Amino acid sequence: MNTDLQKRLDFIIEIDKSKEIIRQTYLADASRKEGDAEHAWHMAVMAFLLADCSNEEIDILKVMKMVLVHDLIEIDAGDTYAYDVEANKSKEQREQKAADRIFNILPESYALEMRDLWEEFEEYNTAEAKFAHTLDNVQPLLLNDASDGKSWREHGVCKEQVMNRNKRTAEGSEVLWDYCEDIIKKHIEKGNLRP
Amino acid sequence: MNTDLQKRLDFIIEIDKSKEIIRQTYLADASRKEGDAEHAWHMAVMAFLLADCSNEEIDILKVMKMVLVHDLIEIDAGDTYAYDVEANKSKEQREQKAADRIFNILPESYALEMRDLWEEFEEYNTAEAKFAHTLDNVQPLLLNDASDGKSWREHGVCKEQVMNRNKRTAEGSEVLWDYCEDIIKKHIEKGNLRP
Repeated sequence: MNTDLQKRLDFIIEIDKSKEIIRQTYLADASRKEGDAEHAWHMAVMAFLLADCSNEEIDILKVMKMVLVHDLIEIDAGDTYAYDVEANKSKEQREQKAADRIFNILPESYALEMRDLWEEFEEYNTAEAKFAHTLDNVQPLLLNDASDGKSWREHGVCKEQVMNRNKRTAEGSEVLWDYCEDIIKKHIEKGNLRP
Repeated sequence: MNTDLQKRLDFIIEIDKSKEIIRQTYLADASRKEGDAEHAWHMAVMAFLLADCSNEEIDILKVMKMVLVHDLIEIDAGDTYAYDVEANKSKEQREQKAADRIFNILPESYALEMRDLWEEFEEYNTAEAKFAHTLDNVQPLLLNDASDGKSWREHGVCKEQVMNRNKRTAEGSEVLWDYCEDIIKKHIEKGNLRP
Protein backbone atom coordinates (compact mmCIF):
# COMPACT_ATOMS: atom_id res chain seq x y z
CA MET A 1 0.00 0.00 0.00
CA ASN A 2 1.13 3.45 -1.05
CA THR A 3 2.03 5.28 2.20
CA ASP A 4 1.20 8.70 0.72
CA LEU A 5 -2.39 7.58 0.10
CA GLN A 6 -2.55 5.85 3.50
CA LYS A 7 -1.60 9.11 5.22
CA ARG A 8 -4.34 10.98 3.38
CA LEU A 9 -6.90 8.35 4.36
CA ASP A 10 -5.69 8.49 7.99
CA PHE A 11 -6.24 12.26 7.90
CA ILE A 12 -9.72 11.77 6.43
CA ILE A 13 -10.61 9.54 9.40
CA GLU A 14 -8.94 11.90 11.90
CA ILE A 15 -11.00 14.89 10.76
CA ASP A 16 -14.20 12.91 11.33
CA LYS A 17 -13.81 14.25 14.90
CA SER A 18 -14.77 17.73 13.73
CA LYS A 19 -18.36 16.43 13.44
CA GLU A 20 -18.33 16.24 17.24
CA ILE A 21 -17.06 19.76 17.96
CA ILE A 22 -20.24 21.56 18.97
CA ARG A 23 -20.66 25.26 18.27
CA GLN A 24 -22.85 27.72 20.18
CA THR A 25 -25.16 28.35 17.23
CA TYR A 26 -28.46 26.52 17.00
CA LEU A 27 -29.83 24.96 13.82
CA ALA A 28 -32.44 27.09 12.03
CA ASP A 29 -35.25 25.15 13.75
CA ALA A 30 -33.56 25.64 17.16
CA SER A 31 -33.68 21.88 17.86
CA ARG A 32 -30.00 21.52 18.73
CA LYS A 33 -26.60 23.21 18.33
CA GLU A 34 -24.66 22.57 15.13
CA GLY A 35 -21.26 20.91 14.76
CA ASP A 36 -18.14 22.21 13.03
CA ALA A 37 -18.49 19.94 9.97
CA GLU A 38 -22.07 21.10 9.44
CA HIS A 39 -21.03 24.73 9.76
CA ALA A 40 -18.20 24.21 7.23
CA TRP A 41 -20.55 22.44 4.80
CA HIS A 42 -23.05 25.29 5.04
CA MET A 43 -20.32 27.88 4.41
CA ALA A 44 -19.00 25.95 1.38
CA VAL A 45 -22.46 25.93 -0.25
CA MET A 46 -22.79 29.65 0.58
CA ALA A 47 -19.36 30.27 -1.00
CA PHE A 48 -20.58 29.34 -4.44
CA LEU A 49 -24.16 30.61 -4.11
CA LEU A 50 -23.04 34.02 -2.83
CA ALA A 51 -19.72 34.43 -4.66
CA ASP A 52 -21.02 37.45 -6.59
CA CYS A 53 -21.60 39.24 -3.26
CA SER A 54 -17.85 39.41 -2.64
CA ASN A 55 -16.49 42.96 -2.85
CA GLU A 56 -13.39 41.73 -4.64
CA GLU A 57 -12.92 39.09 -7.33
CA ILE A 58 -12.28 35.72 -5.69
CA ASP A 59 -11.03 32.25 -6.58
CA ILE A 60 -14.13 30.27 -5.57
CA LEU A 61 -12.34 26.91 -5.37
CA LYS A 62 -9.84 28.41 -2.92
CA VAL A 63 -12.61 29.92 -0.77
CA MET A 64 -14.40 26.56 -0.71
CA LYS A 65 -11.28 24.65 0.33
CA MET A 66 -10.55 27.32 2.96
CA VAL A 67 -13.99 27.22 4.56
CA LEU A 68 -14.09 23.40 4.52
CA VAL A 69 -10.91 23.16 6.60
CA HIS A 70 -10.83 26.44 8.56
CA ASP A 71 -12.06 24.87 11.81
CA LEU A 72 -10.15 21.55 11.76
CA ILE A 73 -7.74 22.84 14.39
CA GLU A 74 -10.68 22.85 16.81
CA ILE A 75 -10.37 19.04 16.96
CA ASP A 76 -7.56 19.72 19.45
CA ALA A 77 -8.11 23.38 20.35
CA GLY A 78 -11.90 23.24 20.83
CA ASP A 79 -14.45 25.79 19.67
CA THR A 80 -13.81 29.17 21.27
CA TYR A 81 -17.11 30.99 21.61
CA ALA A 82 -16.82 34.41 19.99
CA TYR A 83 -17.96 36.14 23.20
CA ASP A 84 -15.80 34.20 25.69
CA VAL A 85 -13.08 36.72 26.65
CA GLU A 86 -10.88 34.36 28.73
CA ALA A 87 -10.82 31.53 26.18
CA ASN A 88 -9.96 33.97 23.40
CA LYS A 89 -6.72 34.94 25.20
CA SER A 90 -5.16 31.46 24.81
CA LYS A 91 -6.82 30.74 21.47
CA GLU A 92 -3.89 31.45 19.14
CA GLN A 93 -1.37 29.30 21.00
CA ARG A 94 -3.80 26.37 21.29
CA GLU A 95 -4.62 26.60 17.61
CA GLN A 96 -1.01 26.69 16.36
CA LYS A 97 -0.21 23.57 18.37
CA ALA A 98 -3.29 21.85 16.96
CA ALA A 99 -2.33 22.80 13.39
CA ASP A 100 1.14 21.29 13.93
CA ARG A 101 -0.32 17.95 14.87
CA ILE A 102 -3.38 17.67 12.65
CA PHE A 103 -2.07 18.90 9.30
CA ASN A 104 1.12 16.84 9.67
CA ILE A 105 -0.87 13.61 9.55
CA LEU A 106 -0.90 14.35 5.79
CA PRO A 107 2.01 13.81 3.37
CA GLU A 108 4.17 16.95 3.29
CA SER A 109 2.79 18.64 0.15
CA TYR A 110 -0.80 18.28 1.34
CA ALA A 111 0.12 19.35 4.87
CA LEU A 112 1.66 22.52 3.46
CA GLU A 113 -1.41 23.27 1.33
CA MET A 114 -3.72 22.85 4.34
CA ARG A 115 -1.50 24.93 6.59
CA ASP A 116 -1.30 27.67 3.95
CA LEU A 117 -5.09 27.71 3.55
CA TRP A 118 -5.58 27.92 7.30
CA GLU A 119 -2.91 30.60 7.80
CA GLU A 120 -4.26 32.65 4.91
CA PHE A 121 -7.67 32.50 6.58
CA GLU A 122 -6.25 33.51 9.98
CA GLU A 123 -4.11 36.32 8.52
CA TYR A 124 -7.26 37.86 7.01
CA ASN A 125 -5.53 39.76 4.19
CA THR A 126 -6.49 38.25 0.83
CA ALA A 127 -9.83 38.64 -0.97
CA GLU A 128 -10.51 34.94 -0.37
CA ALA A 129 -9.76 35.16 3.37
CA LYS A 130 -11.95 38.25 3.74
CA PHE A 131 -14.87 36.58 1.97
CA ALA A 132 -14.38 33.35 3.96
CA HIS A 133 -14.51 35.37 7.22
CA THR A 134 -17.65 37.12 6.00
CA LEU A 135 -19.28 33.72 5.45
CA ASP A 136 -18.03 32.57 8.87
CA ASN A 137 -19.85 35.53 10.45
CA VAL A 138 -22.94 35.63 8.22
CA GLN A 139 -23.79 31.92 8.54
CA PRO A 140 -24.38 32.03 12.35
CA LEU A 141 -26.24 35.35 11.98
CA LEU A 142 -28.64 33.71 9.51
CA LEU A 143 -29.13 30.77 11.88
CA ASN A 144 -29.62 33.07 14.87
CA ASP A 145 -32.19 34.96 12.85
CA ALA A 146 -34.01 31.75 11.87
CA SER A 147 -33.96 30.40 15.44
CA ASP A 148 -35.30 33.69 16.87
CA GLY A 149 -31.96 34.58 18.44
CA LYS A 150 -31.84 31.48 20.64
CA SER A 151 -28.05 31.45 21.11
CA TRP A 152 -27.96 35.23 21.74
CA ARG A 153 -30.70 35.00 24.35
CA GLU A 154 -29.05 32.04 26.06
CA HIS A 155 -25.77 33.91 26.43
CA GLY A 156 -27.30 37.36 27.06
CA VAL A 157 -25.35 38.77 24.12
CA CYS A 158 -25.54 42.53 23.50
CA LYS A 159 -25.44 44.57 20.31
CA GLU A 160 -21.91 45.82 20.98
CA GLN A 161 -20.55 42.26 21.13
CA VAL A 162 -22.14 41.37 17.79
CA MET A 163 -20.91 44.61 16.19
CA ASN A 164 -17.42 43.99 17.56
CA ARG A 165 -17.39 40.40 16.27
CA ASN A 166 -18.53 41.74 12.88
CA LYS A 167 -16.33 44.79 12.61
CA ARG A 168 -14.65 43.44 9.47
CA THR A 169 -17.59 41.52 7.93
CA ALA A 170 -18.23 44.32 5.39
CA GLU A 171 -14.66 43.94 4.08
CA GLY A 172 -15.66 40.68 2.42
CA SER A 173 -19.11 41.76 1.28
CA GLU A 174 -20.88 45.10 1.69
CA VAL A 175 -24.16 43.64 0.44
CA LEU A 176 -24.17 40.74 2.92
CA TRP A 177 -23.22 43.05 5.77
CA ASP A 178 -26.11 45.40 4.88
CA TYR A 179 -28.44 42.41 5.15
CA CYS A 180 -26.93 41.40 8.50
CA GLU A 181 -27.29 44.91 9.91
CA ASP A 182 -31.03 44.65 9.29
CA ILE A 183 -31.10 41.29 11.12
CA ILE A 184 -29.25 42.76 14.09
CA LYS A 185 -31.60 45.76 14.23
CA LYS A 186 -34.64 43.47 14.14
CA HIS A 187 -33.39 41.32 17.02
CA ILE A 188 -32.61 44.33 19.20
CA GLU A 189 -36.22 45.46 18.66
CA LYS A 190 -37.46 41.95 19.50
CA GLY A 191 -35.39 41.89 22.69
CA ASN A 192 -33.24 38.94 21.56
CA LEU A 193 -30.10 41.09 21.63
CA ARG A 194 -29.47 43.50 24.47
CA PRO A 195 -29.10 47.10 23.16
CA MET B 1 -34.05 44.24 -0.62
CA ASN B 2 -32.88 42.47 -3.74
CA THR B 3 -35.29 39.52 -4.25
CA ASP B 4 -32.67 37.44 -6.07
CA LEU B 5 -30.42 37.58 -3.01
CA GLN B 6 -33.38 36.99 -0.67
CA LYS B 7 -34.24 33.78 -2.56
CA ARG B 8 -30.67 32.53 -2.22
CA LEU B 9 -30.68 33.25 1.51
CA ASP B 10 -34.07 31.50 1.86
CA PHE B 11 -32.54 28.46 0.15
CA ILE B 12 -29.51 28.60 2.48
CA ILE B 13 -31.87 28.42 5.47
CA GLU B 14 -34.01 25.70 3.85
CA ILE B 15 -31.02 23.38 3.30
CA ASP B 16 -30.16 23.64 7.00
CA LYS B 17 -32.65 20.75 7.28
CA SER B 18 -30.16 18.40 5.64
CA LYS B 19 -28.19 18.48 8.92
CA GLU B 20 -31.09 16.54 10.41
CA ILE B 21 -31.31 13.80 7.78
CA ILE B 22 -29.64 10.89 9.53
CA ARG B 23 -27.76 8.28 7.53
CA GLN B 24 -27.14 4.66 8.51
CA THR B 25 -23.37 5.11 8.78
CA TYR B 26 -21.79 5.65 12.19
CA LEU B 27 -19.08 8.21 12.89
CA ALA B 28 -15.55 6.76 12.98
CA ASP B 29 -15.74 6.47 16.78
CA ALA B 30 -19.13 4.71 16.52
CA SER B 31 -20.71 7.19 18.96
CA ARG B 32 -23.68 8.11 16.73
CA LYS B 33 -24.88 8.04 13.11
CA GLU B 34 -23.86 10.89 10.84
CA GLY B 35 -26.10 13.42 9.10
CA ASP B 36 -26.25 14.30 5.40
CA ALA B 37 -24.48 17.64 5.78
CA GLU B 38 -21.59 15.97 7.62
CA HIS B 39 -21.36 13.29 4.95
CA ALA B 40 -21.30 15.94 2.19
CA TRP B 41 -18.63 17.95 4.02
CA HIS B 42 -16.46 14.86 4.39
CA MET B 43 -16.84 14.03 0.68
CA ALA B 44 -15.94 17.59 -0.35
CA VAL B 45 -12.69 17.47 1.64
CA MET B 46 -11.99 14.04 0.12
CA ALA B 47 -12.65 15.46 -3.35
CA PHE B 48 -9.64 17.73 -3.20
CA LEU B 49 -7.39 15.48 -1.11
CA LEU B 50 -7.96 12.46 -3.38
CA ALA B 51 -8.46 14.17 -6.76
CA ASP B 52 -5.34 12.49 -8.18
CA CYS B 53 -6.94 9.09 -7.50
CA SER B 54 -9.58 9.75 -10.16
CA ASN B 55 -9.16 7.52 -13.23
CA GLU B 56 -10.03 10.41 -15.51
CA GLU B 57 -9.10 14.09 -15.38
CA ILE B 58 -11.74 15.97 -13.38
CA ASP B 59 -12.86 19.54 -12.72
CA ILE B 60 -12.36 19.58 -8.93
CA LEU B 61 -14.59 22.60 -8.35
CA LYS B 62 -17.45 20.84 -10.14
CA VAL B 63 -16.95 17.65 -8.10
CA MET B 64 -16.94 19.68 -4.89
CA LYS B 65 -20.16 21.51 -5.77
CA MET B 66 -21.75 18.21 -6.83
CA VAL B 67 -20.92 16.37 -3.61
CA LEU B 68 -21.97 19.33 -1.43
CA VAL B 69 -25.49 19.32 -2.89
CA HIS B 70 -26.01 15.70 -4.05
CA ASP B 71 -28.17 14.75 -1.05
CA LEU B 72 -30.27 17.93 -0.66
CA ILE B 73 -33.30 16.21 -2.21
CA GLU B 74 -33.33 13.96 0.89
CA ILE B 75 -34.78 16.92 2.83
CA ASP B 76 -38.10 15.87 1.28
CA ALA B 77 -37.34 12.36 -0.01
CA GLY B 78 -35.50 11.07 3.07
CA ASP B 79 -32.34 8.96 3.15
CA THR B 80 -32.88 5.67 1.35
CA TYR B 81 -30.63 3.07 2.94
CA ALA B 82 -28.54 1.38 0.24
CA TYR B 83 -29.73 -2.08 1.31
CA ASP B 84 -33.47 -1.29 1.71
CA VAL B 85 -35.04 -2.97 -1.37
CA GLU B 86 -38.61 -1.63 -0.93
CA ALA B 87 -37.61 1.98 -0.34
CA ASN B 88 -35.32 1.91 -3.37
CA LYS B 89 -38.29 1.14 -5.66
CA SER B 90 -39.98 4.51 -5.02
CA LYS B 91 -36.72 6.42 -4.64
CA GLU B 92 -36.52 8.06 -8.08
CA GLN B 93 -40.05 9.45 -8.07
CA ARG B 94 -39.71 10.81 -4.53
CA GLU B 95 -36.40 12.44 -5.40
CA GLN B 96 -37.60 14.13 -8.61
CA LYS B 97 -40.49 15.70 -6.73
CA ALA B 98 -38.13 16.88 -4.00
CA ALA B 99 -35.77 18.41 -6.56
CA ASP B 100 -38.68 20.33 -8.12
CA ARG B 101 -39.53 21.96 -4.81
CA ILE B 102 -36.14 22.49 -3.21
CA PHE B 103 -34.04 23.78 -6.11
CA ASN B 104 -36.83 26.13 -7.21
CA ILE B 105 -36.55 28.12 -3.99
CA LEU B 106 -33.50 29.61 -5.76
CA PRO B 107 -33.60 32.25 -8.52
CA GLU B 108 -33.87 30.52 -11.91
CA SER B 109 -30.20 30.53 -12.98
CA TYR B 110 -29.07 29.06 -9.66
CA ALA B 111 -31.93 26.55 -9.64
CA LEU B 112 -30.82 25.35 -13.07
CA GLU B 113 -27.18 25.03 -11.99
CA MET B 114 -28.18 22.98 -8.91
CA ARG B 115 -30.55 20.79 -10.89
CA ASP B 116 -27.87 20.19 -13.54
CA LEU B 117 -25.31 19.23 -10.89
CA TRP B 118 -27.74 16.84 -9.24
CA GLU B 119 -28.90 15.30 -12.54
CA GLU B 120 -25.33 14.89 -13.75
CA PHE B 121 -24.58 13.05 -10.50
CA GLU B 122 -27.65 10.83 -10.87
CA GLU B 123 -26.99 10.08 -14.56
CA TYR B 124 -23.53 8.78 -13.63
CA ASN B 125 -21.88 9.39 -17.01
CA THR B 126 -19.27 12.15 -16.70
CA ALA B 127 -15.84 11.83 -15.10
CA GLU B 128 -16.99 14.17 -12.31
CA ALA B 129 -20.15 12.14 -11.62
CA LYS B 130 -18.18 8.89 -11.54
CA PHE B 131 -15.64 10.28 -9.12
CA ALA B 132 -18.39 11.83 -6.94
CA HIS B 133 -20.13 8.43 -6.75
CA THR B 134 -16.83 6.80 -5.83
CA LEU B 135 -16.47 9.25 -2.95
CA ASP B 136 -20.11 8.62 -1.97
CA ASN B 137 -19.31 4.90 -1.66
CA VAL B 138 -15.79 5.12 -0.24
CA GLN B 139 -16.65 7.56 2.56
CA PRO B 140 -19.08 5.19 4.36
CA LEU B 141 -16.71 2.26 3.75
CA LEU B 142 -13.94 4.17 5.54
CA LEU B 143 -16.30 4.99 8.41
CA ASN B 144 -17.54 1.41 8.61
CA ASP B 145 -13.93 0.28 8.73
CA ALA B 146 -13.09 2.77 11.51
CA SER B 147 -16.20 1.85 13.54
CA ASP B 148 -15.47 -1.90 13.25
CA GLY B 149 -18.36 -2.46 10.84
CA LYS B 150 -21.01 -1.23 13.29
CA SER B 151 -23.61 -0.33 10.66
CA TRP B 152 -23.00 -3.57 8.72
CA ARG B 153 -23.38 -5.67 11.87
CA GLU B 154 -26.52 -3.81 12.92
CA HIS B 155 -28.20 -4.49 9.57
CA GLY B 156 -26.72 -7.98 9.02
CA VAL B 157 -25.25 -6.85 5.70
CA CYS B 158 -23.54 -9.50 3.53
CA LYS B 159 -20.60 -9.26 1.14
CA GLU B 160 -22.84 -9.53 -1.93
CA GLN B 161 -24.84 -6.45 -0.91
CA VAL B 162 -21.67 -4.40 -0.47
CA MET B 163 -20.23 -5.64 -3.78
CA ASN B 164 -23.50 -4.86 -5.52
CA ARG B 165 -23.64 -1.37 -4.06
CA ASN B 166 -20.04 -0.88 -5.19
CA LYS B 167 -20.22 -2.43 -8.63
CA ARG B 168 -19.30 0.88 -10.28
CA THR B 169 -16.97 2.32 -7.60
CA ALA B 170 -13.86 1.38 -9.62
CA GLU B 171 -15.12 3.47 -12.56
CA GLY B 172 -14.28 6.62 -10.61
CA SER B 173 -11.04 5.37 -9.05
CA GLU B 174 -9.29 2.03 -9.45
CA VAL B 175 -6.86 2.87 -6.66
CA LEU B 176 -9.57 3.73 -4.13
CA TRP B 177 -11.56 0.64 -5.06
CA ASP B 178 -8.46 -1.57 -4.54
CA TYR B 179 -8.18 -0.08 -1.05
CA CYS B 180 -11.89 -0.72 -0.37
CA GLU B 181 -11.67 -4.32 -1.51
CA ASP B 182 -9.05 -4.91 1.18
CA ILE B 183 -11.38 -3.33 3.77
CA ILE B 184 -14.26 -5.58 2.69
CA LYS B 185 -12.05 -8.69 2.84
CA LYS B 186 -10.87 -7.75 6.33
CA HIS B 187 -14.42 -7.31 7.64
CA ILE B 188 -15.59 -10.62 6.20
CA GLU B 189 -12.71 -12.27 8.09
CA LYS B 190 -13.67 -10.38 11.25
CA GLY B 191 -17.28 -11.51 10.91
CA ASN B 192 -18.60 -7.94 10.55
CA LEU B 193 -19.88 -8.71 7.04
CA ARG B 194 -21.63 -11.97 6.29
CA PRO B 195 -19.79 -13.93 3.52
